[in-house]
Amino acid sequence: MFDDTRTHNCGELTKEKIGDTVTLSGWVHRRRDHGGLIFIDLRDRYGITQLVFKPTINKQAHAAAYTLRAEWVISIKGRVIPREEGMINSNLKTGAIEIEVEALTILSESKTPPFSICDEQISAYEEIRLKYRYLDIRRGKLANHLVMRHKVMMTTRNTLDARGFLEISTPVLGKATPEGARDFLVPSRLNPGTFYALPQSPQLFKQLLMIGGMDRYFQIATCFRDEDRRADRQPEFTQIDIEISFCSRDLFFSIVEELVCNIFKSGIAVNFHRPFRRLPYKEAMERYGTDKPDLRFGMELIRLDAVAEKSEFAVFKDVLKSGGVIKGIVVKGGGDISRRTIDDYAEFVGSFGINGLAWIKMQEGGPSSSIVKFFPKPCLNELVETMKAETGDLILMVASSESLVNQSLDHLRRKIGKERKLIKLNHYEVAWITDFPLFQWDPESENYVCEHHPFTSPLPEDISLLDSNPLAVRSSSYDLVINGYECGSGSQRIHDGALQNKIFEMLKLAPEEIKNRFGFFIEALGFGTPPHRGIALGLDRLVMILVNTESIKDVIAFPKTQKASDLMLEAPSPVLQEQLHELKIHIQKKETL
Amino acid sequence: MFDDTRTHNCGELTKEKIGDTVTLSGWVHRRRDHGGLIFIDLRDRYGITQLVFKPTINKQAHAAAYTLRAEWVISIKGRVIPREEGMINSNLKTGAIEIEVEALTILSESKTPPFSICDEQISAYEEIRLKYRYLDIRRGKLANHLVMRHKVMMTTRNTLDARGFLEISTPVLGKATPEGARDFLVPSRLNPGTFYALPQSPQLFKQLLMIGGMDRYFQIATCFRDEDRRADRQPEFTQIDIEISFCSRDLFFSIVEELVCNIFKSGIAVNFHRPFRRLPYKEAMERYGTDKPDLRFGMELIRLDAVAEKSEFAVFKDVLKSGGVIKGIVVKGGGDISRRTIDDYAEFVGSFGINGLAWIKMQEGGPSSSIVKFFPKPCLNELVETMKAETGDLILMVASSESLVNQSLDHLRRKIGKERKLIKLNHYEVAWITDFPLFQWDPESENYVCEHHPFTSPLPEDISLLDSNPLAVRSSSYDLVINGYECGSGSQRIHDGALQNKIFEMLKLAPEEIKNRFGFFIEALGFGTPPHRGIALGLDRLVMILVNTESIKDVIAFPKTQKASDLMLEAPSPVLQEQLHELKIHIQKKETL
Repeated sequence: MFDDTRTHNCGELTKEKIGDTVTLSGWVHRRRDHGGLIFIDLRDRYGITQLVFKPTINKQAHAAAYTLRAEWVISIKGRVIPREEGMINSNLKTGAIEIEVEALTILSESKTPPFSICDEQISAYEEIRLKYRYLDIRRGKLANHLVMRHKVMMTTRNTLDARGFLEISTPVLGKATPEGARDFLVPSRLNPGTFYALPQSPQLFKQLLMIGGMDRYFQIATCFRDEDRRADRQPEFTQIDIEISFCSRDLFFSIVEELVCNIFKSGIAVNFHRPFRRLPYKEAMERYGTDKPDLRFGMELIRLDAVAEKSEFAVFKDVLKSGGVIKGIVVKGGGDISRRTIDDYAEFVGSFGINGLAWIKMQEGGPSSSIVKFFPKPCLNELVETMKAETGDLILMVASSESLVNQSLDHLRRKIGKERKLIKLNHYEVAWITDFPLFQWDPESENYVCEHHPFTSPLPEDISLLDSNPLAVRSSSYDLVINGYECGSGSQRIHDGALQNKIFEMLKLAPEEIKNRFGFFIEALGFGTPPHRGIALGLDRLVMILVNTESIKDVIAFPKTQKASDLMLEAPSPVLQEQLHELKIHIQKKETL
Repeated sequence: MFDDTRTHNCGELTKEKIGDTVTLSGWVHRRRDHGGLIFIDLRDRYGITQLVFKPTINKQAHAAAYTLRAEWVISIKGRVIPREEGMINSNLKTGAIEIEVEALTILSESKTPPFSICDEQISAYEEIRLKYRYLDIRRGKLANHLVMRHKVMMTTRNTLDARGFLEISTPVLGKATPEGARDFLVPSRLNPGTFYALPQSPQLFKQLLMIGGMDRYFQIATCFRDEDRRADRQPEFTQIDIEISFCSRDLFFSIVEELVCNIFKSGIAVNFHRPFRRLPYKEAMERYGTDKPDLRFGMELIRLDAVAEKSEFAVFKDVLKSGGVIKGIVVKGGGDISRRTIDDYAEFVGSFGINGLAWIKMQEGGPSSSIVKFFPKPCLNELVETMKAETGDLILMVASSESLVNQSLDHLRRKIGKERKLIKLNHYEVAWITDFPLFQWDPESENYVCEHHPFTSPLPEDISLLDSNPLAVRSSSYDLVINGYECGSGSQRIHDGALQNKIFEMLKLAPEEIKNRFGFFIEALGFGTPPHRGIALGLDRLVMILVNTESIKDVIAFPKTQKASDLMLEAPSPVLQEQLHELKIHIQKKETL
């Protein structure tokens, strides 16, 4: 089926082909000499096929086969024969056959690789594996991830194309955008003293395409952020960027849901129920303490303010008095969790600034805890009822400011969920989180900052609150959350120049700055802008979920380290003085670096 | 079929839908008030539908319709009705119907655009059209180009996916490559004093993927070159980048031919004959004077050295003596071309450094020209025979160095072909040009330079000439030429580290430089490299041919000017001093700029 230096790949020959003459090419995976015969496991990215060299078939090839070493590249011609009884490997698709080699060509020799290609587990440092990334890819696992990534991209494009979306490429050499992170800059040689910026997203371009009438746009877009590297970030990442005009939220959700369903179905044969669950931001925060809840298990956060008020527990009452809240979770069947483990939990929530973790064990004889005494009988009953706790359960409670309570219980819930294996393997839960607040208050800059980005439209019914109570304004925004990971974020956009200008002003952008950075865009909004909305899905994140890895490096062909270096290329690197001279820039003197 | 703020687009309603209630959204293209009725041409990127507002149907909507101006965005609900007799526009798909509007919503108003959206031709300067690119897109023609570009990308991906190729994204933040042009540099903040380079092509990455066993790779890749802008170049451009292992040239050609055929078939319903014609470089130069011949018409270059030698024409003989050549073309039926036009041709070839254009008119009475006297009868006969000239034709001849003769006659041939309309409309001719020389001699640097790039493999049978006669070495390279445009370039790659090193040495790269720039790559070649080959097709160029435009700006959503500026964004632009400070770079002082 394949090429002329191979009729088949190394992963496809089975009993049905016995007797056929075939040509295979690939890498020497393992060599075994056995009773005058030489066995080679020949490998390519599709699988492994066993070759047998017999002196009786081709003396020369048999002799040459002795010289073969691991990772040499060879091409062979031979006949498919059945393996001997007892030699059949039923774990391997090709395990019932082997190739009796009639001719051998050595295409390329290999030095000894710095780490083993054929072992499942290797002990090499990540640095070495990144330096020799091509060898790490050859080991197979990363190769499979890249296959998955390709599949996701194909499914994305075919799904959106079928729905009338056009993929339109937008510039990489752009202008500084306002999305919070630092830009990578590119000095312009033809316009000395000025710079391009690499895009943090194609946001403005896709909105301009809507203004231009290209009503269904998408792009699998490379985006750039010059951040101080957090563990799971890359300086360049990829988003599935979608924008649409004249489209309600319901219709748009159904399009994105179809896309996500197709991706999971074609990628790992998982079917999602549609329509996806929708959780307003406020409800997500109340029930899970986070805007990206892991919905694969329960253990929801339950508010205990009312019952705590009725108790005599001073700790809770003081917190309530100072404007804080009390929330709890129930660990089902957690009544046997040791005091020591509970102390660990207390330490864990302590790391979020929480002072003390209250607990009640639901024992046969009734609730038991050092704090039970502060709860009169009816109050205790109400607490247990509110928490829906049963005999054998463990109740854990936290009292502090609402944000700390949510943050700590979210983490505690996920920690316990993981430890107690509440999450079924290969289980996926997806939801829309909607109606985020438009602004957050940033105490550091003493400014409002956007929860999403400044092009997000407020909910129409909340626009009147913009002046009186900005923090109460909800936006027409939505995040897509899968298994507790934010996989996408989008919104209805502002399509009115005056409102857009007002939002910039509320962000404390000076008129001059608005004009310099967004003047062209606000002008564009004035030439007949259709209502439009969109989303950006994180391609890297989706692939990570599909292949079940925690590292973004595992789903990118040539990733960078946390210091944003490519260890294979040795980039970034110094450049020639004449290049800088052409760009009219200097590097700051060493001593001041 | 569409959204909820539109049940249909503006380009699809026909008589079959009469009586249906529909919702349409779009831009006000034109308004006409006529006998108490208001007619609006409503436009989106799919077409135009006529709306009619009647006071009898909805008085309010009718009144509101008076306020509508060009480019306002509206949404309407109404009934599809037949147009009155005599009002039917058979040029328009929707020309038999109109919509009787029952409800109108104004979604967005518009200022008066800087140029007309609804006129076919506009007189606005290109600068204005680039500044308001989104409005120029809205005019329709560019929109159609973007649709074609999308189609080409979809066809490419589906064709290659079906053939087992994986699309793998390679980094944009890379390392300086050696492909001749200047790199765009990106200062690294985390590694002060060092720089990334934007890729001129993914060449090394795709070869590393082959070494990694990803045997069928492709990518629609954005590439970057910081060149002094020639008319038809952009700082970022796009190539369809393909690489394959274990694959003969014949098989590879068949894959690329399938791809190109699918692109032209799905794009403009043109079918190419397969396999494509193949012309070795040497033959192309001999017969057309160029390595990218326009094969849509004949008028081939014919060598006249032998017959010129026999003539008494001193001009020709002197040229031959000094190592030059004589070649000619025949303009069929060109016997009536005026002396004045021939003088223009002479001036035209003069611009390439050619001193004089010899000509012979094939008149009824025999060949006629001021130089006929220098050709004895048999010699003249031989000339006419060699040129296959007939009565009524014009022979044009040029004598100079081989490269000037080829260059000037190539251009003259194409000029005359165009002027005399020898090229049929919607005619396409495609060919492979093969076996280019591996090196050219660059008199300026007094060095060999690569005709393609330094990773191109020499033809096996010519490797022995590398030391003795480098300029005679042919490479395993191939260009794809359509209608005289180079649309792609590729080769078998060097897969042997020692040979790769030798090529670098022949290019006069110092060992230190080889190590710094390509050390990692030469090392990679040593770990078992499969034979591999590939090609890069110019996506922009393919789309330009498909939509029949001469400007690359016409096939890119947001192009840059010749000074590499984006007039819409006003990029590149100055940045804040603190950004430069973070990058540890200075801009050279103004006075030295």
